[in-house]
Amino acid sequence: MHGYRSNKDDLLRRLKKIEGQIRGIQKMIEEDRYCVDILAQLAAVKAATNKVGLSLIDSHTRGCVANAIQEGDGSKHIEELLEVIRIFTK
Amino acid sequence: MHGYRSNKDDLLRRLKKIEGQIRGIQKMIEEDRYCVDILAQLAAVKAATNKVGLSLIDSHTRGCVANAIQEGDGSKHIEELLEVIRIFTK
Amino acid sequence: MHGYRSNKDDLLRRLKKIEGQIRGIQKMIEEDRYCVDILAQLAAVKAATNKVGLSLIDSHTRGCVANAIQEGDGSKHIEELLEVIRIFTK
Amino acid sequence: MHGYRSNKDDLLRRLKKIEGQIRGIQKMIEEDRYCVDILAQLAAVKAATNKVGLSLIDSHTRGCVANAIQEGDGSKHIEELLEVIRIFTK
Repeated sequence: MHGYRSNKDDLLRRLKKIEGQIRGIQKMIEEDRYCVDILAQLAAVKAATNKVGLSLIDSHTRGCVANAIQEGDGSKHIEELLEVIRIFTK
Repeated sequence: MHGYRSNKDDLLRRLKKIEGQIRGIQKMIEEDRYCVDILAQLAAVKAATNKVGLSLIDSHTRGCVANAIQEGDGSKHIEELLEVIRIFTK
Repeated sequence: MHGYRSNKDDLLRRLKKIEGQIRGIQKMIEEDRYCVDILAQLAAVKAATNKVGLSLIDSHTRGCVANAIQEGDGSKHIEELLEVIRIFTK
Repeated sequence: MHGYRSNKDDLLRRLKKIEGQIRGIQKMIEEDRYCVDILAQLAAVKAATNKVGLSLIDSHTRGCVANAIQEGDGSKHIEELLEVIRIFTK
């Protein structure tokens, strides 16, 4: 149903990797590792999260939003989409 | 024609204001004003530019993109839209 | 030693929470939840990661960077700090 | 005095360019140009503004902040610097 259905496995794989990175950062802090190295890892998590978000926005637009527009019921979906974009560009 | 036609005056007014802010920042630098005050102005320009961008993305989605989808020709427009979102979330 | 030593527990607690959020997002995808709700959670992770990063930049600047500057050896540390800021403002 | 004094000309040149880009965008809107082309220009302004900001943060840290730290008076300056970084990473 949802636009992301066809790339569910890919999304899950990427989120699993982000989860591992977050655990790695916790370990770095426990081991008193150098702040700059930890920050580089955090920036990587931020970028990876952004990419997963863009991928979801992509499939959502092609799926749910495009369908709703075709059925003449796009207004609410476009509103929602723009709200999400607003959050992600902050 | 374009989605932004109905709020052209609003967009121009906001861009005029940003132009004035950029000139104000040049004056601050010429007058050797404090860096932090200049940075606050630059952050304001960045935020204002982002808002104009979101406003254009809004009217573009409701206009050009929605029209193309309704005419069964949405694919290229969605691709373009997502490319623009990608640039703006970086 | 490191600037973040005094707030290690706070950082770990926040990272644990982010890890939980990432796992929650995976569950949402497995359960075919609505894309926009998933995106809202992803945006929350992005914001939380950014806040942990800023907190580390804060303690790093007050700790390592300030120490190095006081010992007349700040140049390399400032270079590193700015590189990290550059990555985080992208 | 200020950290940015030595690259004042470079900063002014870049701000002049941004000012020209903003004027160009106004012209594009007046001429009903395609939204996506306008958005590409806006993204360029956002990126250029960010770069000027990073350049100012750079010279400010090496100048004012480093001086204040060396004189044992860094606390207020570091606080200010972090506030600026916070605004720029939003």
